[in-house]
Amino acid sequence: MDIYLALVHHPVRNRAGDVVTTSVTNLDIHDLARTARTYDVRGYLVVTPIAEQQTLVQTVITHWTAGSGRTSNPDRSQAFTRVEVVPSLDTAIEAIAARHGQPPLVIGTSAKKDRDTVSYASMRGRLSSEPGSALIVLGTGWGLASDALDRCDVMLDPIDALPARAGYNHLPVRAAAAIILDRLFGDR
Amino acid sequence: MDIYLALVHHPVRNRAGDVVTTSVTNLDIHDLARTARTYDVRGYLVVTPIAEQQTLVQTVITHWTAGSGRTSNPDRSQAFTRVEVVPSLDTAIEAIAARHGQPPLVIGTSAKKDRDTVSYASMRGRLSSEPGSALIVLGTGWGLASDALDRCDVMLDPIDALPARAGYNHLPVRAAAAIILDRLFGDR
Repeated sequence: MDIYLALVHHPVRNRAGDVVTTSVTNLDIHDLARTARTYDVRGYLVVTPIAEQQTLVQTVITHWTAGSGRTSNPDRSQAFTRVEVVPSLDTAIEAIAARHGQPPLVIGTSAKKDRDTVSYASMRGRLSSEPGSALIVLGTGWGLASDALDRCDVMLDPIDALPARAGYNHLPVRAAAAIILDRLFGDR
Repeated sequence: MDIYLALVHHPVRNRAGDVVTTSVTNLDIHDLARTARTYDVRGYLVVTPIAEQQTLVQTVITHWTAGSGRTSNPDRSQAFTRVEVVPSLDTAIEAIAARHGQPPLVIGTSAKKDRDTVSYASMRGRLSSEPGSALIVLGTGWGLASDALDRCDVMLDPIDALPARAGYNHLPVRAAAAIILDRLFGDR
């Protein structure tokens, strides 16, 4: 399958469980662009409904793909050619559907097991054997809100350490993205 | 084994291959502290020879373990109780040796396969079955310089995507740390 990654800034939860819009951070754009490119993700979609933040993301993308960043750091530039900014998760899904002629398999992620989940091993097999496209959805803040989870066709298991080492579950989204992509597409 | 993680700011290489000292970044302290804690790493050692940067790191640690950060974000605080700053890789190794009565197995990491390397599967088995301690060494910048690599008892395979997806190899150190710990200690 052709793989896409969405980093959602709305609707997500804050620590209190309220539905909020988080701010885009420059480092998330950079880190996830490089990590996504490493695992040959076709498109990394930064999802924010805030127009000013969309402009900010587009400015960063343009700097690295057409501006001086293109020559100063070609590797970084190569990663940024696959970054896009979109106003909503629905827009992301529709854009991928338009590109591939059918909607992507929407794969949700969460640090908590509130819904039925599938293992990385089974998803790895499915993604490598089926045609079409898939969109892996990551939430910022304290994770995807219900409205975003409801758009997912399937949820991945929460990331955890071996049982003897488990008990702390507060990975940065940058780390979670890397681990998820490696579990699905890493050469181990 | 009891596991430690070192993030080395000297000696590392820059893009041109020169041996340099990189700056500590606040985000590396935070991200690796949370990721290391998730996989039950006993100590995360930030290695820098620059006194001002040691003071900076110590200020951040103190804020989160004894200052207002302790109550404002207890999860973050818990991760920071395992962060230390040391002036050199040798000091890191000596501190762990003093704690455990014998030197740690020093495990190097690199994005390039310049030396003999071992697979994650074999290292995962060794770390889970042998007693003692191990120190996983990550370089900032363009990776560990020879003097640091020479201190390593064994090198891990470079991280790569599946062959069909490979070809781009510029992961952020924050992503590399997460993937390495998950490959060694993740519950998949």
